[in-house]
Parts: sequence; C-alpha cells; structure tokens
Amino acid sequence: MSTTAELQAKHAKYVLTPWVAQGGLSAPVIVRGDGRYVFDSDGNKYLDLGSGLIAVNLGHNHPKVVRAIQEQAQTLAYAAPSLFNDKRAELAEELVSISPWKTEGARTFFTTTGAESNDDAVRIARAITGRQKILTAYRSFHGSTGTAIALTGEDRRWHGEPGGPGIMRFWAPYPYRSPFYASTPEEETSRAIENLERVLMHEDPRRVAAILIEPVVGSNGVIVYPDGYLPALRALTEKHGILLICDEVMTGFGRTGSAFGSTRFDVVPDMITFAKGVTSAYLPLGGVMIRESLAKTFDARALPSGHTYSGHPMCVAAGLAAVRAYKEEKLFDRAREVEGWLRSGLTALAEKHRIVGDVRGVGAFFALEMVKDRATKEPLVPWHGEGGLGVMKTFYAELRKRGVYTFGKFNVAMIAPPLTVTKDELDAGLGAVDAALSALESTL
Amino acid sequence: MSTTAELQAKHAKYVLTPWVAQGGLSAPVIVRGDGRYVFDSDGNKYLDLGSGLIAVNLGHNHPKVVRAIQEQAQTLAYAAPSLFNDKRAELAEELVSISPWKTEGARTFFTTTGAESNDDAVRIARAITGRQKILTAYRSFHGSTGTAIALTGEDRRWHGEPGGPGIMRFWAPYPYRSPFYASTPEEETSRAIENLERVLMHEDPRRVAAILIEPVVGSNGVIVYPDGYLPALRALTEKHGILLICDEVMTGFGRTGSAFGSTRFDVVPDMITFAKGVTSAYLPLGGVMIRESLAKTFDARALPSGHTYSGHPMCVAAGLAAVRAYKEEKLFDRAREVEGWLRSGLTALAEKHRIVGDVRGVGAFFALEMVKDRATKEPLVPWHGEGGLGVMKTFYAELRKRGVYTFGKFNVAMIAPPLTVTKDELDAGLGAVDAALSALESTL
Ligand SMILES: Cc1ncc(COP(=O)(O)O)c(C=O)c1O
Ligand SMILES: Cc1ncc(COP(=O)(O)O)c(C=O)c1O
Repeated sequence: MSTTAELQAKHAKYVLTPWVAQGGLSAPVIVRGDGRYVFDSDGNKYLDLGSGLIAVNLGHNHPKVVRAIQEQAQTLAYAAPSLFNDKRAELAEELVSISPWKTEGARTFFTTTGAESNDDAVRIARAITGRQKILTAYRSFHGSTGTAIALTGEDRRWHGEPGGPGIMRFWAPYPYRSPFYASTPEEETSRAIENLERVLMHEDPRRVAAILIEPVVGSNGVIVYPDGYLPALRALTEKHGILLICDEVMTGFGRTGSAFGSTRFDVVPDMITFAKGVTSAYLPLGGVMIRESLAKTFDARALPSGHTYSGHPMCVAAGLAAVRAYKEEKLFDRAREVEGWLRSGLTALAEKHRIVGDVRGVGAFFALEMVKDRATKEPLVPWHGEGGLGVMKTFYAELRKRGVYTFGKFNVAMIAPPLTVTKDELDAGLGAVDAALSALESTL
Repeated sequence: MSTTAELQAKHAKYVLTPWVAQGGLSAPVIVRGDGRYVFDSDGNKYLDLGSGLIAVNLGHNHPKVVRAIQEQAQTLAYAAPSLFNDKRAELAEELVSISPWKTEGARTFFTTTGAESNDDAVRIARAITGRQKILTAYRSFHGSTGTAIALTGEDRRWHGEPGGPGIMRFWAPYPYRSPFYASTPEEETSRAIENLERVLMHEDPRRVAAILIEPVVGSNGVIVYPDGYLPALRALTEKHGILLICDEVMTGFGRTGSAFGSTRFDVVPDMITFAKGVTSAYLPLGGVMIRESLAKTFDARALPSGHTYSGHPMCVAAGLAAVRAYKEEKLFDRAREVEGWLRSGLTALAEKHRIVGDVRGVGAFFALEMVKDRATKEPLVPWHGEGGLGVMKTFYAELRKRGVYTFGKFNVAMIAPPLTVTKDELDAGLGAVDAALSALESTL
C-alpha cells in the first residue's frame, strides 16, 4: 500500500488533470464511496454535494447497480456493436418508458460520453434535415470533443477554435442578469424568443438543422429558464422544421425532479442526448435518443456514426440496473422533495450571507451565485476572468475542511447532491456551506 | 427470460447500430464470453477471430481483470477527475513502464474512447506548437467524434464533412497497391517520404503542428509499412519541429507483438493515443500519453480539454489489471508466437485460394485482401463501392455457420484473435476460414 503522499506524487508525476495548469496541483486521493459520501486515502469523509460532476444521481455504491456490474463482468464484458446484445436491447426499451416519446416510441444510438452524444446528435440532425447550421446558446457547455467544444457557448470553447463550420450562437434567458433588459420572467421569455427569431431571420431558418439546448443550463450556472420559454422555443422550431435537441447530459435521470428536463418542463424535443446519470456515472455511457418518426430515416440510409464502445455490454448493464433503480425507488419524485429542502435551506443562507446574490435551481440541482455587491450584482470573481476561481477557492477549501465536496465555475457554486440524499445529511451539508460562506466573507 | 426472437425484435425496434442502414438488420444476440469464444442466446459458440473490434486482446473473461472490476465496483465506482484517485495514478505509472519513454517519462491524459483521444491529442499538439495544421494519411481511421472523423482518411469521414479546418492528407505506403508505382519495399519507403516532403513543402512545414498516423493501418486493411518508413517519418518530423502522434488505438497493448506499434517498429513518437486493448475492452478507457519534455508545457498553462469520465476509477482499475496481466503473462511476446502461426497458416490458405490476393500482418494482427484476379488485383468488392461488403457477406456468414466471428471492410477481412489464442483454437479457426473461402469461391 502506498501512502497518501506517495499517491499524490505519483498522480502529479504521471496523470494530467482536465482544464487546469498542472504545476503544484494536489487533491485528496479518493479511494472509496458509500451512499452520499466519498472517502480519501487518509480516511477523511466528504459529503458529495456535487454528485461527482452532477452525475452520481443514485449516490455511491448502490447495491443493485454494483451487483449488475459484477454479474455482467463475469458473464460478458464486451461484444462488438454489430452483434446484438440482450442488455443493450433491454436498456433501450426502458429508456423509452421514461422518455417524452412513450407513445410514439424512440430509438437509442449508444455512445460512451456526453460529448460524443452531442457530436453524433448534430451529425444525425444534419443527415436527417439535409441542412447544415446548428444554433446553440451562449453560456452553455456541450462537451470537449471536436464538435461538442465548438457547440459550447463559454470559455472552454476557445481552446478548440477554430472549430467546425456552421455553428451559430444566440442568447437564452438568464433572469438574474437579463441579456434582454427584461424586468419580469414573462418579459424575459418573450424577449428571448424575439431575439431568437431575429437570429433565425438573419441565418435563414430553412438552413438551420437543429437548435441544441440544455433544458436547465448546467455547468454555466444552473440557470432555470422562465416558464414558457422552452415551449415557445419548441413552437418556433416546429414552425421552421428545425429539430430541437435537448442536451440532457446533466439534466437527465431525475436531476430536475422528472426523468428528463424536457419532461419536467413539458416539451417534446426531437432528440435527447444523455450520459452521466444514466448509469449514475458508475460506468461511462452516453447516447442519442431519436423519436421514432425521425429514427426511421435510417432504415434505408446508413446511420452516419459509430464507436467501438457503442452499447458496451458492461455499460448498458449498469445503465439498465440504474434506470430500474430510479423507477423502483421513485427517485424522480424524490428529487422534488429534495428540491423543497434545498430551496428553503439555501434561501435561508442567502438571507444570512450578503455574498450570495442569487439562489436558483430545480429538483436536486441548485447553485449559489456569489457577488461583491447585491445592488450592482458585480460577480465575486469575474466570469471568464483570468484568475479562474480566485477567492472561490477559499470557499471550496473551507467546505472540504468541513467534510463537504462540491465544485463550480467562476462565481457560481453547485449544490446538487445525489437524489437519495437524506434530510439529515443535507442539513449537515448546508451547515457546512453556512460556515464556509462565513469563512469566505471573513477573508474579503 | 426473453427468447432470441424477442430480443432481436427489441434490438431492432429500440437500438440503432453503427454505420449501417437499420432496415431488416439482425444478428446473433451475444450474451456470454469465455476465453477466445463468445456465445449467443441460443447457446451457439463463436471463436472470436476479430477480438471484438481488435480490442479484446486478453480474450474474454480474464479472471484477474474480472476480479479487479468486481472489487472496484464495490469500493469506488466514480470520482470526479479533479480529485485524485489511487488506481489512476498507478495505471499512469504502469503505462510509462511499457512506453517508448521509459527513461524520459510521460504523462497520461485519460479519456474514454479512441476518438476522444485523437480529438484531444490534436488540440494538445496545436496548443504545444502554436501551429494549426495537422497531416494524416489517406486510408486511415481515427474515430467518429468531431475532430477524429475529420482526421480520418476514408469514407466514414464523408459523413462528417465539412469538418474542422486545417487538416491535410498525404499518401502513406501500401506495398500491395503502391500509390507511388514502386516495385520494391525500399522504393516504396523512399518514395513515400519524398511524397510527404513535397506535401510539407506545399503546406509549409512551419505551420504543421503534428502528423498523426497509425503505426500499422488498422481497419483500412492491416497495412504494415515497409521497413524504414516510420523511422524516416520520425526523422522528417524532427527536422521540422513537427510532433509525431502515433494512433495506437488498435496497435497498442501487444497487438503487433510489442507493447505498442511504435516500440515494435523502433520509433519514439511525441504522443501516443490509445484505447481498446488498454482494458482488453472490458471497460471503455482511452488516453493520450505525452512525453515528459512536452507534457511539462502544461505545468504553467491549462490543459485544453476535459471529460466527466477522465480517469474514471472503474475503467482505470480495469486498465491496471489488464496491463499487469499483459506483463505477467508476457503476452506481447506471445503475440509474436501467434504471428508465426498466423503467417504460415494464412499463407497456406492463400496458396490454396486464388481469391486471396494478399496476406499481410504483424503480431496477432493479420488480414486477407480478396481479389477477383491475382494479376490485375481487381478487388473482390470495390473499395468505397456503394454495395459495401457485397459478396464478402457470404464469407462472414459462412464463417459464422462454422462458429467463427470476424469482420472487415470492403474486400479485406481481419484475422486478429486475442493474444491468448492457443494453437489448437487457431488451427480450428483457420480451418473454418478455409472452408468459408471455398464456399465463397463456389458462389462466384
Ligand atoms: C450539459 C452537458 N453536456 C455535455 C457534457 C459533456 O459530457 P462528457 O464530459 O461526458 O463528455 C457535459 C459535462 O459536464 C454537460 O454538463
Ligand atoms: C486506429 C483507430 N483509431 C481510433 C479509433 C476510434 O476508437 P473508438 O471507437 O474507441 O472511438 C479506432 C477504432 O476502431 C481505431 O481503429
């Protein structure tokens, strides 16, 4: 057994960590998970208020999913996707049962990650429509592969530029910092739609294959769109024969208090891309669900993509057990209960700490947006500022000292526990958030 | 338990299969794997002469890898890549021990698939060099994500066009059908290098960030480059400060009779991309290895990519067990023994069957190229022909009837068993190939 210091040195020497400079990097060495907790190599315990990266929706070590993985491992680890597989077929059937297309039906093209799913969805949308342009929102994240990074509407995209052609961006609602100078949610919705109509007019809607959108903005700040926005967006796309693709990589599998963000907000998209929650992140799995009326395009034409691990038996077996666990334990409903606890607990923290400019969220998917001044709303650390997390690092360090893990981007911290979190666990976690906010304030 | 017919119907109704039209599609439902065999839901057994998709290098159900997966599943299934993890560090260390950079050292950025690895390697090469252009070979496959498909040099790329900017293609050696009108392997090598020099002259070598190449061409026909080509390519890239990236997604982990294709052919590239064999495909894992002298670029600057599943604990645990199994069981050497069996067995088949135009390969990585006529070398089914596999379908169907699975592209069939294949198993498999060739010939 290596010591913590040895493991950290080995990690720093041999492993490259995403999105950051590697010099001087260190972190707890996570070696075990259980329920809502992860444990490091020194036995320290952390409440997982970030569900990993908003992915471990079931919590860690769910016995039924663990068992499904163990059994599959000794039965069949891999088969090429050109050969059929029992678990793959069964999971695809289960997915329809929780989808917005229960009646119409849908088919799933399995991938391995969220980014791959978006790359494929866009290629498929272009193949179906014969159109080239794709519209996405600023303040979105769609992944880091070649197309997904180009679809993304924030600074991570800059690393992949110039990306592929034909991707245009629009502004979506952000009630706390309205890009439309709106003063009510209704105004935010109507102006956002007007804005999008203007963009379409200048791009030619007949050339637009799809609009890709997160039903709730995820890593860019858990922005919940005001009522009516997504349905109006759906109506607009339908008017122009534009496909609506919901990126449900973060919002899927109960995160918003319903199977998908689209089901929570009553829109029926044309495709859904998913990953993360489908297996509660126990194994890598992603996919593109395509409503049957469009999927049948590929009965006569070749599907324009493929991956070695498409429908990987281990990963679909984990997904099958996870989806059944969500259903049996009614966890999508449970996320609505968690929503109540989070809303009242976080609102109380905002009343106490002036540094909290906005509390927002839905389901088990919340965020705190930190400001220097509530009146001006000046961000505590500038969005896209060179300093990155800046003083927010203190917040996460103070949380970790108190046995709580979460993460965030610039001035926004995610509070998104597994859907299985108990009231007591959450209360303890919010107590730590309270103390970490005080500690951060005392340094300013 | 569902019947085979029910499972096949479910699969056809709910699952989209890569790269093909879905209408009327059917295949055996694979439910179990053991050693060199997979089994379908009717209990039929197939010798896996394709190692899945040239990925299951250990064979199916290797007890040590199965156990590692089972143990990790009940310990820690997932932790965010920003947190360190013991198995991740240990695997990255093991990878250096089999890499071309044993002395210099190297760091690994873990991804989930082969395609993601290539997308990232190209972005990283651009970040390191500050140059934009990437050169790849015609007759290459690099994956299906946004950048990987644009890097690809065959028909699958057409589905992703127009892709990202700055990717140019050159011709690499193909001794059986020389694009350089060469009559000896030496001439093939020298002309291929001259050709590449001409391309560089017209693209400006100072603008070229990297050349990405499969050390042995994989799904485009198992083309083994003539002696001297890869070292000369390495020298040329060094002369111009161009990074050499070896795509070892297929060639890695013993496939060519050495840890990597680069170690087999004595070249030290700047980066290696890998996937497939690293876990024997038991779980999805990929990565980019970067030699230490270049990896340290990212000590002060942010690494320009990230993925939810980067260094996924389950997948690196499987990788760690697999790499240790390769080493302990000396399977890279064993692949050279398999090479002998394959070369003599397949050469004997070629002598018997005039339809076999060329037998080629290295390690446990061989192919048969089928022709209508040995003198004209007219392909049995046209490369990039609309008919796809055409009459080659008969060959695969006849093989399956005889309990053997493999796959191929157009007129080339892969013969690439797990490195653990026994002489008896292989003899039986080649017997089936013999019979399937006869059956195919009798239909022509
Ligand atoms: C909304 C959204 N889409 C796509 C992705 C990319 O998923 P992956 O990291 O699995 O490629 C993410 C990852 O956080 C995401 O939040
Ligand atoms: C040489 C090579 N590179 C990349 C890939 C893509 O790997 P994946 O299917 O895991 O994305 C493949 C897949 O066959 C390959 O053979």
